[in-house]
Amino acid sequence: MAEADLQSQKKPQQQDPMFARVVLQQCISARLQIRPATADSSAEFVQIREGLVVHTCFCRGATAETVAKLATKVLNARVFKPEDSEKAISVLNLPGDVLIVPQATLGGRLKGNVLQYHRNLAKDESLKLYTDFVELCTKTVGDNNNRYGYGCQVFGGTYGNRQVLSMETNGPHSNIVEI
Amino acid sequence: MAEADLQSQKKPQQQDPMFARVVLQQCISARLQIRPATADSSAEFVQIREGLVVHTCFCRGATAETVAKLATKVLNARVFKPEDSEKAISVLNLPGDVLIVPQATLGGRLKGNVLQYHRNLAKDESLKLYTDFVELCTKTVGDNNNRYGYGCQVFGGTYGNRQVLSMETNGPHSNIVEI
Repeated sequence: MAEADLQSQKKPQQQDPMFARVVLQQCISARLQIRPATADSSAEFVQIREGLVVHTCFCRGATAETVAKLATKVLNARVFKPEDSEKAISVLNLPGDVLIVPQATLGGRLKGNVLQYHRNLAKDESLKLYTDFVELCTKTVGDNNNRYGYGCQVFGGTYGNRQVLSMETNGPHSNIVEI
Repeated sequence: MAEADLQSQKKPQQQDPMFARVVLQQCISARLQIRPATADSSAEFVQIREGLVVHTCFCRGATAETVAKLATKVLNARVFKPEDSEKAISVLNLPGDVLIVPQATLGGRLKGNVLQYHRNLAKDESLKLYTDFVELCTKTVGDNNNRYGYGCQVFGGTYGNRQVLSMETNGPHSNIVEI
């Protein structure tokens, strides 16, 4: 595995702009810490049942339009394949819960063995878009609940916190979505 | 969020070849089913302690060279940032366990709301490369154990099975590596 031997299959630099990158993972249940324990209080968590964990990162150039497009993509992508269904269906149709986890590390690019984060959006802008994204997904899932009598929930994490997460899956069926 | 409004920020088609795609996630522990339950026997699982979960997909054009390059990248990428360390370190240096999960869904590309898998490697070739990848990671971690007196483990899943996975994390710190 000498370094020289490994260079010949080098991938050309990617030039395409990327405004947001998410990893979708299916779960049976997932739990995310939204407030760490302090001297006076226990940690707080949010928990979802069957549904989608959306690890989310916004990159330079992302705007309100990116948020709208990403919400549409994530909620409508046909990533679930129930055993009793021939066709893959979306989390809206499953219907399932949604847990949106801030995950700035997804913007990283390996240079040698070191991760660089040059393409990540600045922290304050990213917090704003993350908050808007959680709100928009919450509204869309709420509208879907009202329309079909579902009771699905959307939760976000706490931006900037360590994302203490546990997941039970029947196959994470991980998908990457970039826009 | 009309479809027409969402087109203007469309990302150009990616032209770069991609031979393998992995999602790295850090865990405190993770457990993967390697044999489902039958009428006669319980399900079998492998389990790791603190370390790296490597969701792995090989794409068209992947070769033995891809496997070697991917193993080097994954095991040496400095993705861990221990609280007592200023520098990020690799799973070899942590030192941590490695769980390699077959995850063909990572090769998917959304066309509209539907995932297409045209760039995935054929199943038999992919099984071969997956097996070689697990072997090479096992050997490299074993050499590292021998050198430094560590006792880290590497486990793979069962290719083609439903990957029943549970993870406890202190922050998955998800990273995407493409080669």
